[in-house]
Amino acid sequence: MKRWKCIISYDGTHFGGYQIQPNQRTVQGELERVLLQMHKGDPIRVVASGRTDAGVHAYGQVIHFDSPLQLPTEGWKKALNAMLPDDIVIRQVQEVNASFHARFSAVGKEYRYKIRTASEQDVFSRYYSYHYPYPLNDEAIKQALQLVKGTHDFTSFCSAKTEIEDRVRTIYEANLLVADDGIEFQWIGNGFLYNMVRILVGTMLEIGQGKRHWSCIPSILEGRDRRLSGRTAPPHGLYLWQVFYDN
Amino acid sequence: MKRWKCIISYDGTHFGGYQIQPNQRTVQGELERVLLQMHKGDPIRVVASGRTDAGVHAYGQVIHFDSPLQLPTEGWKKALNAMLPDDIVIRQVQEVNASFHARFSAVGKEYRYKIRTASEQDVFSRYYSYHYPYPLNDEAIKQALQLVKGTHDFTSFCSAKTEIEDRVRTIYEANLLVADDGIEFQWIGNGFLYNMVRILVGTMLEIGQGKRHWSCIPSILEGRDRRLSGRTAPPHGLYLWQVFYDN
Repeated sequence: MKRWKCIISYDGTHFGGYQIQPNQRTVQGELERVLLQMHKGDPIRVVASGRTDAGVHAYGQVIHFDSPLQLPTEGWKKALNAMLPDDIVIRQVQEVNASFHARFSAVGKEYRYKIRTASEQDVFSRYYSYHYPYPLNDEAIKQALQLVKGTHDFTSFCSAKTEIEDRVRTIYEANLLVADDGIEFQWIGNGFLYNMVRILVGTMLEIGQGKRHWSCIPSILEGRDRRLSGRTAPPHGLYLWQVFYDN
Repeated sequence: MKRWKCIISYDGTHFGGYQIQPNQRTVQGELERVLLQMHKGDPIRVVASGRTDAGVHAYGQVIHFDSPLQLPTEGWKKALNAMLPDDIVIRQVQEVNASFHARFSAVGKEYRYKIRTASEQDVFSRYYSYHYPYPLNDEAIKQALQLVKGTHDFTSFCSAKTEIEDRVRTIYEANLLVADDGIEFQWIGNGFLYNMVRILVGTMLEIGQGKRHWSCIPSILEGRDRRLSGRTAPPHGLYLWQVFYDN
């Protein structure tokens, strides 16, 4: 039995999210279906670094699985890419030892959120960036980003449905990047709560538009109440960009 | 009765091409369906600058139609965008006089062809650029591009099925641009024959790979035979970029 780690990309548009659910097309479902075929009907469980919601993309999601098959690294990559649908791509395959776990070994993650600010709609990016054609004050956003960096209780920035008790996370990087026809947020942290990046982005956009002042961030964090922060930005601008592990 | 000119974008992925065909989803079909609704059942004919094939995209296709409706420019744009499917976007609407004709008034066109040369597949561009992960000699391609510029009989660079007798066209610009993760060809000319850009691109790729020498271009043109040129590049890298009119 060998353990395989894969870095995968997927276009989240036509998935009901990463995780298997009844009557939904899911990324995990497609991966396990293909592995089942390769293993002649023996089910193989795929473990990911975490879930992504419907419509959310991944450039660098990480998964692992165990297999008795004697295939070389390149053989896995070719076989999986040949059998998977074209909205999932295996970018890298690597043999790892049994102590590696895609979720529990992860020490951090990077998310990106793409926003098209150009006034005109663009048919080619409609599923790949959030069209938000309003003037934004970049300086105000940058001030606010400085204030969310660091270690905080992010209760105000996660879905009210979040069941996890410990909502203290550390954001290492929160950057505003200039991109073609818009902007991109880069978020690097030791972990992110449910909807956390989308609520952070929604709040930043309200700050950029002048609906809130950047100095409101500390009091939102202090309040530990989801109702204090901004609205949840839509899923299709969000990308799980990479997952970090100790090597 | 007023004549309206529109600049439109479409994602060609899920269309059987621009032009109406039985049992196919087409761009013209969608446009005329929406106009039929707006005109309470009176059919309105849409005229485009030219067709595009299945899978080919348009950033700046031009159409015109005549309508008795009294709608302002912005009203047309909003109504059409609200009713059209999300893979067609009306970028601009303009009232023109009755002498304007989207096809016959066009004096030139620009096409772009996007190629991803990075070795790794990219899930987000799979329908929007041609993945061609081979080393290319840019200088050889540029030499060949110089040789196709100008006025020539392009019989060797159009589909053997082309019915038009006069195959003399003028290419004003034939450029190789560097793009993210790849290259882009820019073609500007007074007109392009059926499959001409895709055959030109396919031939340029063979030259870039060293399968042919750039100096073969004059003899291919001279030969007036489709079998002399390279293979037809796939549709999904091709974009009708803009259409030129005398103003």
